[in-house]
Amino acid sequence: MIIQLQENIEEHSYQEILDKIDGVGYKHNEISTQYGKYLVCIGKKDFDIRRIGSLAGIKDIHRVSDAYKLVSSKWKVGKTAVPISEDLAVGNGDFQIMAGPCSIEGEAQVRSTIQHLLENNIKIMRGGVYKPRSSPYSFRGLGIDGLKMWHEQTQEAGIKIVTEVMQVSQIESMLPYVDIFQVGARNSQNFNLLDALGEIDKPILLKRGMSGTIDELLQAAEYIFSNGNEKIILCERGIRTYEKAYRNTMDINAVILLKEKSHLPVVVDPSHGIGLRDHVSRLALAGVMAGADGVIMEVHHEPEKAFSDGQQTLNYQQSGRLIDAMHKTRELALTI
Amino acid sequence: MIIQLQENIEEHSYQEILDKIDGVGYKHNEISTQYGKYLVCIGKKDFDIRRIGSLAGIKDIHRVSDAYKLVSSKWKVGKTAVPISEDLAVGNGDFQIMAGPCSIEGEAQVRSTIQHLLENNIKIMRGGVYKPRSSPYSFRGLGIDGLKMWHEQTQEAGIKIVTEVMQVSQIESMLPYVDIFQVGARNSQNFNLLDALGEIDKPILLKRGMSGTIDELLQAAEYIFSNGNEKIILCERGIRTYEKAYRNTMDINAVILLKEKSHLPVVVDPSHGIGLRDHVSRLALAGVMAGADGVIMEVHHEPEKAFSDGQQTLNYQQSGRLIDAMHKTRELALTI
Amino acid sequence: MIIQLQENIEEHSYQEILDKIDGVGYKHNEISTQYGKYLVCIGKKDFDIRRIGSLAGIKDIHRVSDAYKLVSSKWKVGKTAVPISEDLAVGNGDFQIMAGPCSIEGEAQVRSTIQHLLENNIKIMRGGVYKPRSSPYSFRGLGIDGLKMWHEQTQEAGIKIVTEVMQVSQIESMLPYVDIFQVGARNSQNFNLLDALGEIDKPILLKRGMSGTIDELLQAAEYIFSNGNEKIILCERGIRTYEKAYRNTMDINAVILLKEKSHLPVVVDPSHGIGLRDHVSRLALAGVMAGADGVIMEVHHEPEKAFSDGQQTLNYQQSGRLIDAMHKTRELALTI
Amino acid sequence: MIIQLQENIEEHSYQEILDKIDGVGYKHNEISTQYGKYLVCIGKKDFDIRRIGSLAGIKDIHRVSDAYKLVSSKWKVGKTAVPISEDLAVGNGDFQIMAGPCSIEGEAQVRSTIQHLLENNIKIMRGGVYKPRSSPYSFRGLGIDGLKMWHEQTQEAGIKIVTEVMQVSQIESMLPYVDIFQVGARNSQNFNLLDALGEIDKPILLKRGMSGTIDELLQAAEYIFSNGNEKIILCERGIRTYEKAYRNTMDINAVILLKEKSHLPVVVDPSHGIGLRDHVSRLALAGVMAGADGVIMEVHHEPEKAFSDGQQTLNYQQSGRLIDAMHKTRELALTI
Repeated sequence: MIIQLQENIEEHSYQEILDKIDGVGYKHNEISTQYGKYLVCIGKKDFDIRRIGSLAGIKDIHRVSDAYKLVSSKWKVGKTAVPISEDLAVGNGDFQIMAGPCSIEGEAQVRSTIQHLLENNIKIMRGGVYKPRSSPYSFRGLGIDGLKMWHEQTQEAGIKIVTEVMQVSQIESMLPYVDIFQVGARNSQNFNLLDALGEIDKPILLKRGMSGTIDELLQAAEYIFSNGNEKIILCERGIRTYEKAYRNTMDINAVILLKEKSHLPVVVDPSHGIGLRDHVSRLALAGVMAGADGVIMEVHHEPEKAFSDGQQTLNYQQSGRLIDAMHKTRELALTI
Repeated sequence: MIIQLQENIEEHSYQEILDKIDGVGYKHNEISTQYGKYLVCIGKKDFDIRRIGSLAGIKDIHRVSDAYKLVSSKWKVGKTAVPISEDLAVGNGDFQIMAGPCSIEGEAQVRSTIQHLLENNIKIMRGGVYKPRSSPYSFRGLGIDGLKMWHEQTQEAGIKIVTEVMQVSQIESMLPYVDIFQVGARNSQNFNLLDALGEIDKPILLKRGMSGTIDELLQAAEYIFSNGNEKIILCERGIRTYEKAYRNTMDINAVILLKEKSHLPVVVDPSHGIGLRDHVSRLALAGVMAGADGVIMEVHHEPEKAFSDGQQTLNYQQSGRLIDAMHKTRELALTI
Repeated sequence: MIIQLQENIEEHSYQEILDKIDGVGYKHNEISTQYGKYLVCIGKKDFDIRRIGSLAGIKDIHRVSDAYKLVSSKWKVGKTAVPISEDLAVGNGDFQIMAGPCSIEGEAQVRSTIQHLLENNIKIMRGGVYKPRSSPYSFRGLGIDGLKMWHEQTQEAGIKIVTEVMQVSQIESMLPYVDIFQVGARNSQNFNLLDALGEIDKPILLKRGMSGTIDELLQAAEYIFSNGNEKIILCERGIRTYEKAYRNTMDINAVILLKEKSHLPVVVDPSHGIGLRDHVSRLALAGVMAGADGVIMEVHHEPEKAFSDGQQTLNYQQSGRLIDAMHKTRELALTI
Repeated sequence: MIIQLQENIEEHSYQEILDKIDGVGYKHNEISTQYGKYLVCIGKKDFDIRRIGSLAGIKDIHRVSDAYKLVSSKWKVGKTAVPISEDLAVGNGDFQIMAGPCSIEGEAQVRSTIQHLLENNIKIMRGGVYKPRSSPYSFRGLGIDGLKMWHEQTQEAGIKIVTEVMQVSQIESMLPYVDIFQVGARNSQNFNLLDALGEIDKPILLKRGMSGTIDELLQAAEYIFSNGNEKIILCERGIRTYEKAYRNTMDINAVILLKEKSHLPVVVDPSHGIGLRDHVSRLALAGVMAGADGVIMEVHHEPEKAFSDGQQTLNYQQSGRLIDAMHKTRELALTI
């Protein structure tokens, strides 16, 4: 059960509500975000919601039977738009494209990418400075210095940054330079990281785990929301199956179901979703048609020379064509 | 290695070719289909293909490194169109819709469905008369009599029939009434059935196995082709993964990859691909955008009363809207 | 609901039972096997079982809530022993070993194998004469002539044969030469084949599908039982997962759960379960400890020269040591 | 390539080695652990290992083609024993049992568990004070205070503690009270945590990820080792598959393969491996027979009242019987 509280609720009204909840044997969680105050109440007994509904200080009450609560569409029917800057949002109806390299490699690469983004009217650049790598001997990214260099250049160009954060201790130093914090697939159940990201006021791009369920993804989002941050973007990036013909198996069903189960925006990552450069574009278009609110994709001026995952990285020509095609597809998708 | 032979090849030329193949230590498989004669030669030694290429009676020679040969795009670059009737084909550029109930239930249902198809200009009706059921106590379909009744009605309406065949012994009796034989997911590696369907001259709709790989699907198609029947339509219908939120997980990657790996047409089955009626349409549109040549979907006048899988079956209103949307989507997909 | 009928039930008593069942709105399936007569009644309404229980001709009545009925341990608490010959059974407490090559290759190989079995006191020889192969160009086995040759030699040696049947039309010709018909993983939901095997009076070794569930395996067994054949042996042979380090992933949990859910005997196939020769033995021993009633394993006089799956085939030395170790392990397993 | 350095290597010799490595175009990683000094050199070019082998200060050189290096059995053929205390180790030939509740709940529970362990001669108690929970609203453990209380009691009893650490910032405060740090399945690719655990001198119990591969598990272990900590215990705890009949699917193959691929000890977690209390024992015994060096299992004085995962928790009677059976099984396993 979710109780939406009025912003200006008086202390004694609040106490009265807590007493009532306690009275029916429910446990409550007090949640305060950028946008509102909530009580998430957990209990098993069925009771007449009207016993509470008429109390002072309550805006609305909703039953939510899902394991996740605040991220569920059961209480919030309208879609959530996550603001990135004054004139930029994900989930507001615009189709949002985030493009860039797997890893930030250096100034020249960043400049080249920004140029490509500007030419294609893309507002958000992706790139990794902290890279989760299977092997401890692989390149792990340029770190905070790389981020600062990157930020300096994007700022001039008016471009926003989405990049992965791998641990709690990185958040503070990254904060001034990051517009969207990405949680990678391997950290999708790193609950301490999710808790901490719930305490900042920046958008979070939350990737589904390697073999995470829909339910687990939404509960991971619940961690962030319930810690105070409503600015969450869900991301489907392919799951691990028995099929060996591609790196991951894009779960297109998930895009569709997430849009039903949650009010949060959903983007797709076709680069990781198939892992084969020549097929990323078709997959991206399918994702748009499935209802995604945006896409995050890898592009590089010389994909075959890119750090790490060049195999799934588009070159500028492919990227340019895809961007155009995605906009046309989105236009159609909105009408049918 | 595939050797395409000239139709009028002389016996002594043919023998000469076989001798040469034998000479390099390759084993050969003689294949004769509706459309041509081939020698599929299997061997490990690398040799100069020109040693054979200049022999009389040879149309062309191709190296094919895939496990599957005749269904590979490595030798046949152009796409195959599978003719259904004089003015109907799958894979010829048109987007082909096959719609109908899970099971043929009776005359009234068939009449109603045909009416719906006619109103929406659909030319192929799906339906099951032999149903593979997990439980031996479930309804297994109306059988050959149901098929005859069904055929009688579609014939008047000028509509073609696609229906599942479960075993070799059914083929002969079904032959006069069926336009496309469907091989179900559970029979995708029933090699005797595939062999037998290779010996008839009717289109085969071959579904991917529950947990079949891309490679296994194409090798299953190779069974049919190598027995003499080139008229094969591949079908992606969702795979079995760890995710429990839907009946199957549509593998949209497969649609894209199959179109690259093979010259055969590919259709999608969004009904089984997600198993949730309200989400079939979005999934179908994603499939169109991924490049599918057609769709096979379940529709019923009263889905909630349908035999067996009503949960994934569209009603007429949903179906009508989807058909319209698919055509628009296809139109766009062809231009980008 | 399962109603066990008395063998000598009178026609009018039988009719009375059917009427009562009909009266409560249940559908009934009349089943007659080597060992008994049953009515499997399917319906949703809850009713007082005593309304039927006192009727003449009824031996016993059991509620079975599982999707499978006759193979469930819910009605038959004691374990089933499947007789192979007068002095040989699977599931009678003895640990039964079935060993032999992947494919029957010729007389010398058969003689050599028999010699190995005799030396190790093994009574059942496995081998394939009809081989399901992914590629149509692979060797598909020696067929019925190979089976006859094989049978001639085993008969002299007093050894029984377990071999795979791939389609209904093979059953009749194989019948005189086969002691246990094996249903392969790819045919585990070939319902027509299961139906047909239910109509003969020979033991069936039923393998779990590539990605078959416990439930599907037991329902496949239900097909055989409900057609009249109670002699069923279940076989766990590894499932398809994301892990690529081995051919299949042995599902040891399945061995344990099948023994609880069903009264049928369970054997393991460690050869396919891991697909790596050097690890088959450890896996086999784990299977014994998990509670398996027997093992089916590949052995060959020259594994590296064996047709098809030599990689998972033991040589005689490995096999001999394993047999000894399995007997010791079984002895321990029975005491704890 | 792994170069084992002599402890007392002189600086100029060391520099000479680095120069040589650099000369062949390899990158080197300098690693210093509790037990030795290593250079892990990564490069693609093949070169004659003797060009380096004769240099002063080198103990030994090994080619290791695996993605993981230091944890590979390719260079260290003998098995590693991880010391827990003066007279206790995992991997030294003894079979090590770690038992206790899912969560530490309070003093009475701890006392009761210790009593059970003492009665059964178990030296290591498991229990969680930081619990990774899918839902943010679930109980997350008693935290550091719970750990201190627990430690106080085990110390008196001479029992060692294995417990999960969820993030880097917890390590320092936990250090005095923990004997084995457990990395949970959800953190198996939390590389920062692995790095940090590589910098302490305490044994690490590293669980395989939910859908982690063998290779990923060993590379995760490589993170710990390459940061300086050789005391690593691998743990197979079941993987995520399509099968819904149990919580996880124990991958018994993994136990066998890990023992071949790595020199590190391997324990099994049968509680999570099947998730069904009544089947944990059979599964544990299978694990012992597969070659596990130990077991970690859940036991509780009142499993049905246990926090969180009571379904997979043994009661004392079951636990006592299992311990006895495991020792007998281990005894046999060592002889065959």
